[in-house]
Amino acid sequence: MEKAINATVVTIGDELLIGQVVDTNTTYIASCLNDSGIVLQESVSVHDDAEQILASLRQAIHASDIVLFTGGLGPTKDDITKAALARFFGAELVEDARVKQHVESLYSARPDVLNRLTRTQWLVPDNAEILENRVGSAPLMLWQYKDDDRPVVVVSMPGVPYEMQIAMQEQIMPRLRQLFSDRLPAIVHRNALVYGLAESVIELKIKEWEDALPAAIHLAYLPKDGIVRLRLSSYGEATAEQVERQFETLVNLLSENIIATEDLPLEVLVGKELRRLNATVSTAESCTGGKLAVLLNRHSGSSEFYMGSVVAYDNSVKQQVLGVSEQCLSQHGAVSEPTVRQMAQGVRQLMRTDYAIATSGVAGPTGGTPDKPVGTIWVAVATPNETATQLLHLGTLREKNTDRATVAALVMLLKILRKS
Amino acid sequence: MEKAINATVVTIGDELLIGQVVDTNTTYIASCLNDSGIVLQESVSVHDDAEQILASLRQAIHASDIVLFTGGLGPTKDDITKAALARFFGAELVEDARVKQHVESLYSARPDVLNRLTRTQWLVPDNAEILENRVGSAPLMLWQYKDDDRPVVVVSMPGVPYEMQIAMQEQIMPRLRQLFSDRLPAIVHRNALVYGLAESVIELKIKEWEDALPAAIHLAYLPKDGIVRLRLSSYGEATAEQVERQFETLVNLLSENIIATEDLPLEVLVGKELRRLNATVSTAESCTGGKLAVLLNRHSGSSEFYMGSVVAYDNSVKQQVLGVSEQCLSQHGAVSEPTVRQMAQGVRQLMRTDYAIATSGVAGPTGGTPDKPVGTIWVAVATPNETATQLLHLGTLREKNTDRATVAALVMLLKILRKS
Repeated sequence: MEKAINATVVTIGDELLIGQVVDTNTTYIASCLNDSGIVLQESVSVHDDAEQILASLRQAIHASDIVLFTGGLGPTKDDITKAALARFFGAELVEDARVKQHVESLYSARPDVLNRLTRTQWLVPDNAEILENRVGSAPLMLWQYKDDDRPVVVVSMPGVPYEMQIAMQEQIMPRLRQLFSDRLPAIVHRNALVYGLAESVIELKIKEWEDALPAAIHLAYLPKDGIVRLRLSSYGEATAEQVERQFETLVNLLSENIIATEDLPLEVLVGKELRRLNATVSTAESCTGGKLAVLLNRHSGSSEFYMGSVVAYDNSVKQQVLGVSEQCLSQHGAVSEPTVRQMAQGVRQLMRTDYAIATSGVAGPTGGTPDKPVGTIWVAVATPNETATQLLHLGTLREKNTDRATVAALVMLLKILRKS
Repeated sequence: MEKAINATVVTIGDELLIGQVVDTNTTYIASCLNDSGIVLQESVSVHDDAEQILASLRQAIHASDIVLFTGGLGPTKDDITKAALARFFGAELVEDARVKQHVESLYSARPDVLNRLTRTQWLVPDNAEILENRVGSAPLMLWQYKDDDRPVVVVSMPGVPYEMQIAMQEQIMPRLRQLFSDRLPAIVHRNALVYGLAESVIELKIKEWEDALPAAIHLAYLPKDGIVRLRLSSYGEATAEQVERQFETLVNLLSENIIATEDLPLEVLVGKELRRLNATVSTAESCTGGKLAVLLNRHSGSSEFYMGSVVAYDNSVKQQVLGVSEQCLSQHGAVSEPTVRQMAQGVRQLMRTDYAIATSGVAGPTGGTPDKPVGTIWVAVATPNETATQLLHLGTLREKNTDRATVAALVMLLKILRKS
């Protein structure tokens, strides 16, 4: 195999290094590169500082075939990436008529934004290829550079995540695939989602198989909120058939705990099953507080199967809106099997859906009792025929508990739907 | 002033560089360091690869006083950080009785997890300081190293976010503050949240003041979902009074658009006002799909003011649960002022709260009409006296639209609460 194409991502911005903004750009770019078989070797975050930007550029150029910058392209004073890169490449900043027209039309309805600062956005380096930033004012810049005769492509994109994402999809990735077309490997990925087994338990179960895996096929473990994603990959060194055969063995070894053999979010898997059954769902949430709702309507088109939710945080809402009986609450408490069962049945009836999910638990960090410590969470799924329940014993961290309960509830519904 | 203490963060894990996991660890660590006046100079992500880990360590040691690693400490085969660092520091891995006891008690209820792989967790480098990882099995390691007589502290923490967060809070930051106590500057930060002005408009409004700002005081712009956070900082070079005086001028310059003079999440600001008024709130959400609910009950103790929500995704739920009239829906449509008004009033009555928020809009990417294009979103706030509404014209991106509508709705409620 030819040597892999290596990339480095450099994200620029003080906000990343003082902890005010999570860097989702690197993740997004990494995923795009990975899909095309480009190996992201390293990612770096630096301050809005010309020396640091150029030092990272010099180092990245030596280590990589592609260097991707995000950030520092805004119109304000702290944004200096364009000037720093222009200096490195010996470029003059010149007015670009196409960018000017684009920025003017972008802000045609907001003349206050089309101010002196915004006008600097259509100054571009005279030796860069300028690609269109359809949704923002900062131009996308691409340089083809030679490092001792080795071609290196340097790209600069805005740091605003959705601008960068659209730029990657529509402009940068197509251009990179074109520039490196003769050197990109055929990539194969196969993913399996495993539920109900700890990472180390999985490893012991598949150890013999994993140890015998050919060097050309790689396995990664990715645990999150109770699900471990297993990913089998080959970058041009194994055939799709070879990967497929190994994948089948892996899936057989863990069969009972495999909930999917494709890399899709849980709510999408649930949505697929509901569409297949032409069925609808609603949720009644206490401790998950709307997280199930947010997931179930996250994707466009979810109105086909998702009707709505009641977040019944206060007990009065459980009673008055969901119809949980006063006796049930006073006898068993809000965090109990009878209550979560009535919640699921109540919302199913209220919203006239085929299926319904309910959650009630002590998310923490306070509110635990010796009887029901923090992390005690009940989940129920009501179907046209019955209501199933499940008790979770989770940890002490509020956010983690509600995330895990959300996953547990969706997995429970998914399994029931698959049997329907 | 003494030279600032510099740090480098190195996050380790293939999952970060293939785009499967967002690196929230760097952000968290950055924020902890920043709070203590330690300057995070650079952050780097590398693969689970011993050569890359050690190359990043060598480089970080030269550039920094503190090097913080996360990741690669799990019990599985791909986790190699401990061995790589032990090699660099010339350490043997030896059994640690305290860690052994801790791990055994951690998994006492799950004997399947206490397997051969997990047992490697209590092997630790014999020349590292071992700090307690209260919630996980990977030991925290700290080395005090000399780089040409300059002391450098190297720390290795697990990559699991909540384990790392607890480690930083309880162990690492106290230890670092102790080790560098004589060199940490007195830090001053003041934050203002600005709503309703674009970044460049703010910059022009405050230009004269910003240009005259002393070099010892720094201003950062942090826009997100319609709010721009302005942060004024000094790291030991200006007094709190000097920063305060500048901050007052800044707040005066933008007075009408300032919604807070402290760095708190919007839902916390809303919660404070509701507690002050001893009032309750509920939400009726169509396009925001539960996001308001999730924010309002995100923090422990929110049951004092948050009662619940109806996510009325389908029109039938708007009618049957919230009591929106059929005539209203057929005459004006779901995305209209009369509907959003009835939704807010409906949920306020249903959940017997003092205040209620409602949202209804075309989140996109599909579903737009010439009359109501994607991004058309109505927001309403019902109070004991009246119902106020607001029309937003947002963009075409679903996730961004719902985030911005959520912020707009909370700001609207906040302003109303402050006048009450």
